[in-house]
Formats: sequence, structure tokens, C-alpha cells
Amino acid sequence: MGNGATRMGYREIADELRQEIDSGQLKPGEKVPGENDLMTKYGVEQPTARRALDVLKNEGLVIAKRGSGTYVREFRPIRRVSPDRLKTVVWGTGRSIWSADLGIRPLAQGTEVTTEPAPSIVAHVLGLEEGTAVIVRRRTFAVEDKPVQIATSYYPAYLVEGSAITQANTGEGGSYARLAELGHKPMRFREELRTRMPREHERQTLDLAQGTPVVEIVRTAYTNEDLPVEVNLMVLDGASYVLEYKFSADD
Amino acid sequence: MGNGATRMGYREIADELRQEIDSGQLKPGEKVPGENDLMTKYGVEQPTARRALDVLKNEGLVIAKRGSGTYVREFRPIRRVSPDRLKTVVWGTGRSIWSADLGIRPLAQGTEVTTEPAPSIVAHVLGLEEGTAVIVRRRTFAVEDKPVQIATSYYPAYLVEGSAITQANTGEGGSYARLAELGHKPMRFREELRTRMPREHERQTLDLAQGTPVVEIVRTAYTNEDLPVEVNLMVLDGASYVLEYKFSADD
Repeated sequence: MGNGATRMGYREIADELRQEIDSGQLKPGEKVPGENDLMTKYGVEQPTARRALDVLKNEGLVIAKRGSGTYVREFRPIRRVSPDRLKTVVWGTGRSIWSADLGIRPLAQGTEVTTEPAPSIVAHVLGLEEGTAVIVRRRTFAVEDKPVQIATSYYPAYLVEGSAITQANTGEGGSYARLAELGHKPMRFREELRTRMPREHERQTLDLAQGTPVVEIVRTAYTNEDLPVEVNLMVLDGASYVLEYKFSADD
Repeated sequence: MGNGATRMGYREIADELRQEIDSGQLKPGEKVPGENDLMTKYGVEQPTARRALDVLKNEGLVIAKRGSGTYVREFRPIRRVSPDRLKTVVWGTGRSIWSADLGIRPLAQGTEVTTEPAPSIVAHVLGLEEGTAVIVRRRTFAVEDKPVQIATSYYPAYLVEGSAITQANTGEGGSYARLAELGHKPMRFREELRTRMPREHERQTLDLAQGTPVVEIVRTAYTNEDLPVEVNLMVLDGASYVLEYKFSADD
């Protein structure tokens, strides 16, 4: 097969497969031809077939499943809605563009709490001098054992000392309820987002397929008096989330 | 040089270079060793040197500049602040974690306006029957000739017919001012975000380096009566933006 045809390069083979995915001929979740299939179909050597599949993996169009083959990527995201997640009164309007598993809620795993000198970036955001003691809470969030988020929260130590925020289990209502009891209720939030490819340790922790970017979110929580009381550095599996923000023209 | 050393594979070479970037030995904007440098230093063949650099390009750590070499990626983002951009009264608190060129404002280029049958996804969000006529405004936004965003806005045709929204130039205050004059002032907004690697036409339009993800934003604008009056599908160069959202616990 294909022996009489013009020999194709890996780019042309990738183009053909991409076209089949774009046109819906190959659907999300479907198996794509493997190296052997491509070698036979296009009459190419293994390195060419492998490189063609590699292009599509880096584009995030297909993902390899160990010992099983390569599949068209599916996007079934977790929906993370702000400010709903952080407020009392919920308002909602209209229909969403991406379907999402609204019922799914990632669960925290293995929280680690330490006291550390504030790294410069954290000191900057919290308005502390570099090296001031901060309480650090590190945890990953997972859905059915698949880690989807790495989160690290920092609190000025002088603010939260002696409270359950320094314990693995922060108790009913979590750290925001404890901050409120301490007279530092978080009332305003700023989230800063960027996207990038993962660092090696993030790729491993989140078990990310090739061609999967991460979203980095930095959330700072402020009291009504504009005192920053927490900064949370989050790294999210980009293939697992839709982030939703709702706001009014007169907010 | 290096001829007597153990022959390294492309992964090990990539690991060493990554380590130099992570440690700050190689700084943002600095030139990284080229293929020839790596061949000499590690005593490897060109394909191995090329593959090592390719790993770092796909990780977004380095970018190739045509005819010049490979450089450590710099992140100097445009800051896009919500809801400030869409409201009258501005409140701001605290310090940002990423420095950004606040003064930079991407400019729209070559707006194209057409009337088309609503694609199913747009019809779904706007609450229209599929195929209902919509006004479509397509444009790219650029900073100093570098395209950073592709945006396509859809309006129900029956709502905006005869207004300047159907013209390339929407006039003072833009399409939201025109909607307000028509009695359909946008008052509530929903933005849904996801990240992924770019499709081929997006990579070309936005002139994206290897290893650069995009952010897809779908913004829907609603009147006070919860009538959806616009849906805007945006694709942003992930290496050019920080997205900031501010909200209150009592929003």
C-alpha cells in the first residue's frame, strides 16, 4: 500500500490527520492510526511516522495512552465559577458554551502545613518584608485520583498564629471562616491568570499528556480594609478546567 | 571537547539546559547555545542537538528567532483587567504578582462585518434558533504590528439592524454604546476561559512560537433583563496576556 505513491514527509502526514480531526472524521475519544498503520499507509519509515504523531501530540490534538495507542483528545472540563464559589448570593444568566461536569468537585489531598520565610514574590503581594514568617499550606486537588490542581496558600504568620489555619484540617468553613473569626474576613478577591506550558515537576504531578498547557492563577484575598490576608498560587491542568467569571457593568 | 565524556541523549541535554534556565544562570532574553555549540560541548550529532532544543521549545522555555538563534522566553504581558474594562466605577486593591505593560492597549485591525446564519454554538448561547441571521464582526488586535488576539463578535441581526454595529466603524463608545441607544444596554457579563494549544490557522495568524498555548475566552453580554445581546469568541496569544479578575464576596 502506498508504495507507488509520492513519499510524504512527517508534516504532510500530520496535516492529513489534523484535517481528519478538524472535519470530525476522527472524533474525540477515537483511536488514531498508530506508527505501524502510518508506515503501511504512507510507505514511510518509523521515525517519520513517529514524528508525525509527535506533531499532533505537541498540538494537543491527540494523546498517547500507555500500552494502548493514540487517541483524539476529549475535553470534559471541571467548571470553576467566580465569584459564585466565594460568595453568598448567587446570580446566574444564560447558557454556557462548553458543557462541563458541574457536579464534579476536585478534592484536596494530603495537605502539608509549614512555617517559612516569605519568598520575595509572596512578600510583595502580601505587603510584607521579604523573609517575614508566613504559614504555607500545600495541597493538590484531584478528581477520581487524577490530580488536576496544585495549590499553595500563604498567610502572614502573625495574623493566623494559633488558629486552625496552621493545622492540616482547618475545620468547618475552612480557612476563610477562620480568618473571619480572627476579624480578617476576606471580602475582595483578585485573580491573575496566565497560561504556559508546564514545568517538568508540574507535568509529573498533574500527569499531563504532551501538548497540555497549564493555567497559573494567583488569587489574593483582601479584607474590607484592603489588608491582603492570603495569596494562593494555583497551577491547573489546562485540559481539565473551564474557568468562568461573571460580573456586572456596575460592580 | 567532551569527546571523552559519556555520550548524552537529547533528554539529558535538555535537562541540563532547563536547569540553567530554572536557576537563572540563563536569563529571560538571553541566547541559549545553538545546535553547533551543543554538538561540540556534548560530542553529539546534529539530530540529537536539534531534538534537545526542540524539547525546550515545546515546553515554551525557549523560542527560536528566525536567522538569529534561540533565546530564553521573556514574559512581558498585556494586562486585561475585569470588570474594570467594562464598568464606570473603578476599585483597585493590592499589588500584582506579574509586572505588565499597563499602558499597552491592543488595537483592532481590519474589521470585517458580515451577516450570516448563526452557527449552532452561537445560536445556543444567544438563545436563537440555529440559522437565525446574526451580524458577525471579525477583527484581530495587535500591539505594534504583533497580532495578540483574534476576536469574533456575534449579535442577533434583528436587534442591531440599521445601527452602526453593522458598519466597520461603530462610532463613539463602540458597539456597547450603540446597544444602549437601542435599549439593550449590556449590564452583565459572563466570561468562560479555557486554554489549549493553537490550531494551525491561529498559530499563523498570531505568529506564535513553538510551545505557546492560547487562551480561548467566550464573553456573553446580557441586558438587565437577562437578554443575551452579544457573544464574543476570542483567541489570545497566551504569552502576551495576564488576565485579571476582581470581585467581592458580596457581589
